[in-house]
Amino acid sequence: MKIAVMGHGVVGSGVVEVFYQHYESLTRKSGKEMDIKYILDLRDFPDSPYRDKFIKDFSLIENDPEIGIVVEVMGGLHPAYDYVKACLEKGKSVVTSNKELVAAKGAELLHLAREHNVNFFFEASVGGGIPIIRPLHLCLAANEISEIAGILNGTTNFILTKMIREQMSFADALKLAQELGYAERNPAADVEGQDACRKICILVSLAFGRHVYPEEVHTEGITRITLEDVAYAGSWGGVIKLIGRAKRLEGGKVSAMVSPAFIHAGSQLASVDDVFNGILVRGDATGDVVFYGKGAGKLPTASAVVADVVEAAKATGSSRSLNWEDGDGHTVCDWQETVSVFYIRLKSAACQKELVKQLFGEVKPLHRDGQPQDEAAFVTGEILEKDAAAGLEQLKAAGAEVLGCIRVLDY
Amino acid sequence: MKIAVMGHGVVGSGVVEVFYQHYESLTRKSGKEMDIKYILDLRDFPDSPYRDKFIKDFSLIENDPEIGIVVEVMGGLHPAYDYVKACLEKGKSVVTSNKELVAAKGAELLHLAREHNVNFFFEASVGGGIPIIRPLHLCLAANEISEIAGILNGTTNFILTKMIREQMSFADALKLAQELGYAERNPAADVEGQDACRKICILVSLAFGRHVYPEEVHTEGITRITLEDVAYAGSWGGVIKLIGRAKRLEGGKVSAMVSPAFIHAGSQLASVDDVFNGILVRGDATGDVVFYGKGAGKLPTASAVVADVVEAAKATGSSRSLNWEDGDGHTVCDWQETVSVFYIRLKSAACQKELVKQLFGEVKPLHRDGQPQDEAAFVTGEILEKDAAAGLEQLKAAGAEVLGCIRVLDY
Repeated sequence: MKIAVMGHGVVGSGVVEVFYQHYESLTRKSGKEMDIKYILDLRDFPDSPYRDKFIKDFSLIENDPEIGIVVEVMGGLHPAYDYVKACLEKGKSVVTSNKELVAAKGAELLHLAREHNVNFFFEASVGGGIPIIRPLHLCLAANEISEIAGILNGTTNFILTKMIREQMSFADALKLAQELGYAERNPAADVEGQDACRKICILVSLAFGRHVYPEEVHTEGITRITLEDVAYAGSWGGVIKLIGRAKRLEGGKVSAMVSPAFIHAGSQLASVDDVFNGILVRGDATGDVVFYGKGAGKLPTASAVVADVVEAAKATGSSRSLNWEDGDGHTVCDWQETVSVFYIRLKSAACQKELVKQLFGEVKPLHRDGQPQDEAAFVTGEILEKDAAAGLEQLKAAGAEVLGCIRVLDY
Repeated sequence: MKIAVMGHGVVGSGVVEVFYQHYESLTRKSGKEMDIKYILDLRDFPDSPYRDKFIKDFSLIENDPEIGIVVEVMGGLHPAYDYVKACLEKGKSVVTSNKELVAAKGAELLHLAREHNVNFFFEASVGGGIPIIRPLHLCLAANEISEIAGILNGTTNFILTKMIREQMSFADALKLAQELGYAERNPAADVEGQDACRKICILVSLAFGRHVYPEEVHTEGITRITLEDVAYAGSWGGVIKLIGRAKRLEGGKVSAMVSPAFIHAGSQLASVDDVFNGILVRGDATGDVVFYGKGAGKLPTASAVVADVVEAAKATGSSRSLNWEDGDGHTVCDWQETVSVFYIRLKSAACQKELVKQLFGEVKPLHRDGQPQDEAAFVTGEILEKDAAAGLEQLKAAGAEVLGCIRVLDY
């Protein structure tokens, strides 16, 4: 069983390293003699011990009948999508860590894999080294999954942890994350929530059986979170986390959203700190199950890729359970019609208590050290998203400045 | 694919319930028409909707070639072991939730399953509804696992949680657990640590590849834990949990133990409360991964059993990775030769500071509210188990009463 690895960046080089490091046990577990025949990268790696394997021409992989498994760790949509598609059409199984690819093209590629009786595996695309994809469709097979919620992005979780623990500002924490290599120079995909959005799309597509696309999921990042919000979250009894979540609704619809949220200190998700990820899966039989670990990084991600390679080598046909239908454009409900609980922080010369009560009903006031006289913060009851937005507009019209608005979740 | 379910107690009735409740999706996921043909139980269930399936004679299952999968949820070693063995020898796959059986006979039954090209699955034997067995041998396949530590018994964790949160005494908390159905009338297997011991044996056998038997694992329960110990743990900055743990040592040996332990409040294991379980797996590539969820209960356990049934139905031969060798009697190192950190609580008329220092080196004193003048508590540095035991004997000889001695772990 010959393998091609497309991409020799952080994860790609990790895949080669982990593969040869555990070569013997992998051979035993797969029952197949496996070897990496090609490593595809446009760059040169003259000092690599595997320099003889490097190629620059994808068609060598595509047209080599010896290659049974292709690892795609290039990232991005193009040419990854085109290459993966070509490999599946040639009857090669594909293993990827590329969440952008799976979130955008998962249904199509899974379908293609089944058509050619091979596999399209992507354990590493969510949660890095945390086992989540396989547990979701194999171990929890006898459950109807009703809800998924997770801390799916390590970079933002690191930033929020620094803000919570060390009162570092968002800007300083982001800078530190960049210095430590946790955040990219252009951190938008992380801090604006897109990365978490792709991951919740993959999870919910698998759990609910129909593709949910990133553009269907309302996504808010953490760029507007302040230390004042962090302090109010503390006084409420919790912490702020960036949560990707999805819920099965009656009638087959699904609600899905990525946003910062207040999470109770006692929650299993509240203690997921630094670059760690935590994913909560709620099943009708198991109740809540939580998976925790390093959601990114060279070796954790590479080890998940290599485990998929072993499974692909063992497989005698397409997985029946790793599968979902294409989206129909009507699966995700209008997020503005869903209900939530909100923390709201206002700056207002006049006391807006009456107006707040009129707009939001009974609210729970919050306090913090050093709270200015003209600042008010409170937590609402459950209200419709659109009503909350309308309420904030009315407060602004009455002269209040909305300093913060964060959902409050009950996981 | 016809199934027989042996045992119609809590888990067994749950298996039948979950199976028929998710019948359609299970058929889709397995790609096989499945049905439960027999339910074996000595008792009568005249009101069961499945009353026509009940049988009392095991030989009907053993000798029916239609039966491809047998679910063993009777518990106990006999006749479970004999029945499972007979089924495997007849070429039927077996799925069990019976940790006593797997811990005592796992290597033998796995070997038998391979010999007959069928499967022996036991996801439900550890962690109830938490996916752990399959993630361990499939998803973490590209790791060398160095260490496992877990809260593996929900009953004792419930009792400890009540002691920690509500200052309930051990006796009262046990009584409450019995009233709520979490603890059995004879709670020994839980509170003395045997149940946790069986589970760590299963995990370590799978992770390290060689059978570790319960009698090889030093096991201490929670019966001697007092509210004073809980208070000292709090002042130290943590909680007391019953931890089953195992570690790979240099030279192929393994250390394994079940005992109560101080766990730092910041640890992922510290926030595992009530009847929940949490299992930490340390891999060389993934780092720490933690699995959390309900470790027992009718539906969680049943759903894990049914997921195994689906896997058994899909399988085209024995699993290559769910496998370990028989124990050689030399795998587990002498626990008295391992090192640990200890919390020690003494009652002593004389101040034993000098003797303590002489026996244990520099220690960190702990304090609690209402601490009597003649009570001292401290945490040692790392010392050999046998040296700690000898030290305690010397303290006793010097007139001190040892009120508490609990290991301090760093997970």
